[in-house]
Parts: sequence; C-alpha cells; structure tokens
Amino acid sequence: MAQSQALSLVLLAEQFEKLPGIGKKQANRLAFHIVNMPAGQADEFVKAIQDARKLIHYCPVCQNLTDKDLCPICGNNSRDKSLICVVESPKDITAFEKSGEFSGVYHVLHGLLSPLDGVGPDDIKIKELLERVKKDEVKEIVMALDSNVSGETTSLYIARLLKPLGIRVTQLATGIPSGGAVEYTDGVTLANAFKFRNEI
Amino acid sequence: MAQSQALSLVLLAEQFEKLPGIGKKQANRLAFHIVNMPAGQADEFVKAIQDARKLIHYCPVCQNLTDKDLCPICGNNSRDKSLICVVESPKDITAFEKSGEFSGVYHVLHGLLSPLDGVGPDDIKIKELLERVKKDEVKEIVMALDSNVSGETTSLYIARLLKPLGIRVTQLATGIPSGGAVEYTDGVTLANAFKFRNEI
Repeated sequence: MAQSQALSLVLLAEQFEKLPGIGKKQANRLAFHIVNMPAGQADEFVKAIQDARKLIHYCPVCQNLTDKDLCPICGNNSRDKSLICVVESPKDITAFEKSGEFSGVYHVLHGLLSPLDGVGPDDIKIKELLERVKKDEVKEIVMALDSNVSGETTSLYIARLLKPLGIRVTQLATGIPSGGAVEYTDGVTLANAFKFRNEI
Repeated sequence: MAQSQALSLVLLAEQFEKLPGIGKKQANRLAFHIVNMPAGQADEFVKAIQDARKLIHYCPVCQNLTDKDLCPICGNNSRDKSLICVVESPKDITAFEKSGEFSGVYHVLHGLLSPLDGVGPDDIKIKELLERVKKDEVKEIVMALDSNVSGETTSLYIARLLKPLGIRVTQLATGIPSGGAVEYTDGVTLANAFKFRNEI
C-alpha cells in the first residue's frame, strides 16, 4: 500500500498504530483525518500533546499526575489526609472518584511488584509512601490494587512495612460484583465472598 | 471527573475525542498513554503530525495526497495515463490499489455533488478533471463513486460534460458483492445485478 500513499501519511498512520487499541485501518483513517483537518484544529491537537507532555508531572505528595504544584485532590482541604488509598495508576483514581464514595487521599505506586518482570520495591513509589506516612498523621492505608498475584504481593509487602509503624492497613473487599450472578462467578471469588460475608 | 484530573490531561483527551471513531474512554486512555510515553516517542508522534500537515499537498495532476511533486501513481511511467478512474477521496485509491486490478491513473474529486448540503460543481475538483482531459490523451473515464444519490448525480453530471469531448465514460458495475447471498441482497442491487447480467 505504501506505494500508492504519500510517505509522510504512511509514517503518521504508523505512529497512530503504536497507540493502544488502534488497529491498522483506524490508524490509516486517523492519519487521513489529521491531514484533512482545518489548520487551527491540527495546531490545537499538537499543542494539547505538547502541553500535556510539558506541564504534567507527579504530585510531590501522592504521585498522581498533575499540572499544578499539588494534584487537585491533595490540594483540596476538605479531603481526609489521614486516610490514604494506595492505587497502581492514576487511572484507578479516576475510577474511584467516579464512584464518589471516597473522601480520603491517594497514593499512586506507578506499578506493582513483579519479580519475574524485574520490578522490585525501588521501581515503584513505595519509598515515597513510607516517607509520607512518617511525616503526616496517617491513620489508615487502604490497599486498592488489582486482585491478582502482583497486586496481592504488593499489598502484602507494603502491609509488612507499615504495620510496625502502628498504622491500620486494609484492602478492598473481594466478592461478587454488583449485578453479578452467583452461577457465573468463579470459585476463588465465591470462596472470598463467603469468607467475608457480612450481617444483613 | 475533571476535578480529579490534571487540566492539560483533560484537554488532551478532549482533542482525541474529536477524532473519528474514538470515544470518551479510549480518548482518556490515549491521553494517559501519551503522557506516559518515553520522551523520544512523543516527539516522533508530534513530528509525524507536523510533517504530514506540512509536506502533504494535492498532486497537481490527479489531486491525490502526496508529499512529492507528483503522487506515486502519476509519477509511475508504467501506469496507463489514457484511463482515468474518478474517485471521491484518496481513501478510495488505497482500496483500489489493494485490489491490484487497475493499471490506469486516478482523479480525486474530494467530495460529491450534493445540492442540499450546498456542494456544487465548483466545490469539488471537476474543473481540474476537464482541464486534464483537454490536455492529455484520455480514452476512457471510469466513474468509481459510491452507489448512492450523491454518487450517481455526480457521475451523471461529469458524464454530460465529458461525452461532447468524445471520451468514453463508464461506471463501476453494481451487483451482488463477492461472497454475498442472493437471499440477503436488497431489491435495487438485485435489479441492477439482473440488468447487467453477463455470459458465463
């Protein structure tokens, strides 16, 4: 196909194809779209990319992405600073905030421990969490990591570091998802849901 | 959600959401991906956009997109310049070239006549086609436009302009798509397929 298409169009499509969830056909369509955009709109698109790249950094407190000194959550005085929810990535914060249930603050690890992939404690933001706990008055840490081997390993590792400091460490409940059917729930989830059953 | 996310991240996601086929969730995911990219990769992406915008222009002969003086097809001496396939957009050329059946050259209209949308003959590249036909030795023009009202109106309009010049004007056959079932084919298509039936 490259033969019948302009080289810089092919190169742009290849760049789009590198993005997550974008296949060959959509990449091609997006490249055409970019080339046919009004000039102002294309400039805005490039500027949004460059601004995001230039302005966004980790919040010095919780490691969330921000373009201010502090992230919007750490900078909000009505949030409970004594309750920290530890998540893997900034996307998890978005999911939590959508639920509207959490009034504490967050800590983003930017990864999970995974010895097989060479990800050790120094590769994720564990040190920053410990420093924060020692400095601020933290009462409880909720580990809100994915329910898989890496998530559980990381939760356990951090819990062992924090318990000696007299901090309550909890984790998200595992159980049947809201709206889920018992019939189609896997055995491990059912076992956990049974173990953590509560009074009605 | 904007409250918990950095502003420039939200703005970048909004830019992605404007692109065709990209919804709110994927736009958000792409914005995160861009922010987390290694620096070199993000620069390459921006450069590909800027290069495509800067370098690509219409081929002076056929109006296809190109970043050379002539598009790769007009610049190819082994293509038959006396046979012109008229298409709506450069994407159609990609589709034709994939089929590998066509050895002539193209002419891109960049639109179809659509009086209701205010698109008249001067808004698409009809004048350029006429000039080309008068200048070069063209034997046949194949109208390869979509099989709908706008496509047929445009084909008819162009055919009426070209016939007095003694040029053969044809159009793509309509019929049952390859692999298609008669049972599920609409009446208009079936009627056309019957009308243009050919010897086996």
